[in-house]
Amino acid sequence: EAMYNYVDIFQVGARNTQNFNLLDELGRVDKAVMIKRGISGTIEELLYSAEYVFSAGNEKLMLCERGIRTYEKASRNTLDVNAIPILKEKTHLPVIADPSHGIGIREFVEPIALAVVMAGADGIIYETHQKPEEAASDGQQTLNFEESENLINKLRKTFELRRSF
Amino acid sequence: EAMYNYVDIFQVGARNTQNFNLLDELGRVDKAVMIKRGISGTIEELLYSAEYVFSAGNEKLMLCERGIRTYEKASRNTLDVNAIPILKEKTHLPVIADPSHGIGIREFVEPIALAVVMAGADGIIYETHQKPEEAASDGQQTLNFEESENLINKLRKTFELRRSF
Amino acid sequence: EAMYNYVDIFQVGARNTQNFNLLDELGRVDKAVMIKRGISGTIEELLYSAEYVFSAGNEKLMLCERGIRTYEKASRNTLDVNAIPILKEKTHLPVIADPSHGIGIREFVEPIALAVVMAGADGIIYETHQKPEEAASDGQQTLNFEESENLINKLRKTFELRRSF
Amino acid sequence: EAMYNYVDIFQVGARNTQNFNLLDELGRVDKAVMIKRGISGTIEELLYSAEYVFSAGNEKLMLCERGIRTYEKASRNTLDVNAIPILKEKTHLPVIADPSHGIGIREFVEPIALAVVMAGADGIIYETHQKPEEAASDGQQTLNFEESENLINKLRKTFELRRSF
Repeated sequence: EAMYNYVDIFQVGARNTQNFNLLDELGRVDKAVMIKRGISGTIEELLYSAEYVFSAGNEKLMLCERGIRTYEKASRNTLDVNAIPILKEKTHLPVIADPSHGIGIREFVEPIALAVVMAGADGIIYETHQKPEEAASDGQQTLNFEESENLINKLRKTFELRRSF
Repeated sequence: EAMYNYVDIFQVGARNTQNFNLLDELGRVDKAVMIKRGISGTIEELLYSAEYVFSAGNEKLMLCERGIRTYEKASRNTLDVNAIPILKEKTHLPVIADPSHGIGIREFVEPIALAVVMAGADGIIYETHQKPEEAASDGQQTLNFEESENLINKLRKTFELRRSF
Repeated sequence: EAMYNYVDIFQVGARNTQNFNLLDELGRVDKAVMIKRGISGTIEELLYSAEYVFSAGNEKLMLCERGIRTYEKASRNTLDVNAIPILKEKTHLPVIADPSHGIGIREFVEPIALAVVMAGADGIIYETHQKPEEAASDGQQTLNFEESENLINKLRKTFELRRSF
Repeated sequence: EAMYNYVDIFQVGARNTQNFNLLDELGRVDKAVMIKRGISGTIEELLYSAEYVFSAGNEKLMLCERGIRTYEKASRNTLDVNAIPILKEKTHLPVIADPSHGIGIREFVEPIALAVVMAGADGIIYETHQKPEEAASDGQQTLNFEESENLINKLRKTFELRRSF
C-alpha cells in the first residue's frame, strides 16, 4: 500500500516467487506485476506463481528469467536462455530477461542481453548507474550511462532484425 | 587411425571431455579438434582439456558449449549461454555452440542458435536430416532440410548484424 | 505475535531462510528458533541467516538440513548428509535433519533418519500422522504411529552407539 | 587383458560409467565388476550401465554411490545418501558407498562412512595411506592407518546394530 502511488510495475523478486501471500495481494492490484523466477525455481513453478496472481484477478503480468543456480561458478548465475522460447510457447504473457543477474559480470551484460532478444524475449531489465563502482549494490554487474546507451542502440537493431524474420 | 582419412575435424564428445588418453592422441594429429564441454563439466575443466591437447602439440582447437545438466527438466540440457563470452575472454580459440543438444527440442533450435551468435559464438553445429522423424538418433532435436535452410539464412543476417557492432 | 503463546520453537521454513524481516523479528523473541536450509541454499547462506538472528539478540538457535534441489529426480530432494559434519564443525549450534523432506518417500524415511544420526545430527524432525494417506499434506513422506514408534526405538539405539564412540 | 591376472574386482570409474565399449568388455569377464555412478549421473543411468554389463553375461556386479556434482562447494561432491535405499529397492545388487570422494574432507570421512551403513549400504570403499600428506593423489581425503583401524572398528559395530534391527 505504501508503494502503490509511486510504482508503475510491482516486481516480485526471486526470493518471493513463492510468497503466496504477496502474490495473492498483487492479484488484487490494478497495476502490472513482473514475477522473477526463483533462484532455483523451475519454469513450471514460475508459471504456477503467475497462475496464482492471474486467478486472483490481475492479468497484467510479466515473467522474468534471471538465471538459476547451478554447479558452474564462473558466472554469478546461469541464465537459462532455453526458458525464453519455452515460456513463450506455454503462455501469452510477456517474457523479460535480466542479463545483469543472469551473468553478474559487467562486461558480459551486453552479449547476453542481445542473445536473449534473439531467443525471443519481449524485453530486458538491466542495472545502470552513473558510477557503477560507487553503486550501493550489485556494482559489478551494473553498466554506466555510456555503456547503457550503446546497449540500447544495439538492442534496437537486434529487435528490428528479429522482427524481420 | 581408422577414421583419419575420412575426417576433417575430430569431435570429442561430452562423455570423453576428460578422456586424457584420447586427448593425448589427438594432440599428435595434424587435423582440427573440437572438444565438447562435459555433461556436467565446468568451463575451467573444458579449458584444461584444451590445454592438454594444445600442450601435446595440436593447436587447431575449437571449444563447444552443448548444454549442462541442471535441475530444470523442461529442456534436455540447459545451454549455458554465459559460457560463450566467458570462454571468448579466457582463450583465443573459436567457440562453437550446439543448440540441438543445448535445448533438445526441434522447434526451439532456431531461437537458441540465433541467441548464441549474438552472445559471441564463432559458429554453431546442429543436427539436420531429410526426415527427422526417421532419424536413427536424436530426431526430436533435428531440423529437416527446409528448416535448416531457413536457419542458415537467419544465421547469416545475425552474424552480419553482430559484426556491424 | 499471534503465534507466540502457542509455540515452543519457531521454525523458519525453506522458503523463508533469507526473509531478513522475519529473521530480524525472531532475533528479538525469547523462544527457540530453528532455521531450515533454503531449497537451493548453501551451507554458507544458512550460517549467514543464523548469524543474522544471533546478532539481533536471540542465541537459542537450531539449524536444519532438509535436502537440496539437484538434477536427481528419483527422490523429492537430495538430503545433503555432508552438511551435517560441516555445520557441526563451523558452529556450536544444534544441527537437526529432516529426512521426510530430505528424501520424500515414506519407506525410506527410516534409513535416512538413522544415517543422519551417525553423521552427527543432534536431532531429527519427521512427519507422522494417524493415517498418512488422509494427511492434508505430504502424506507420501509421512509415517503412521506404528512406523513412528519403531523409528524412535531405532533412533534411541543409534544415538547410543554413536555416543559410545 | 593386461590387468586380468592382478585384479580381483574391476572398478569402473565415474568418468567411464557410460563407456559402453568398456562395459561390454567387462560383461564378458568372469570377475566381479563395481560400477561407480557418474559425476553427474542419475540413479537410472547407473542402473542402465549395470543392465548393460549384466546382459553381456556378467552377473557379478556391484554399484557404487560416490557423490554427485551440485551447486554446494563446501564439500568436493555431494554424497547422495538417498541413492542407497533407492538402489537397494530397485535391484538386488550389492550397493557400496565411497565416503572419501563423497565428501572429500579427511576428518569427515568417518561420520559419512557410518551414515551410509545405517542408510543400508552393503559395504564402503575409502582411501587409506601410511602418510596421507605424501599420497600421490587425493591425500586430503585419505585416512592414515590409525584412523583407518578406528573406522573399521566403528563400522563393525554399526553394521552389527543395523543387522539387529
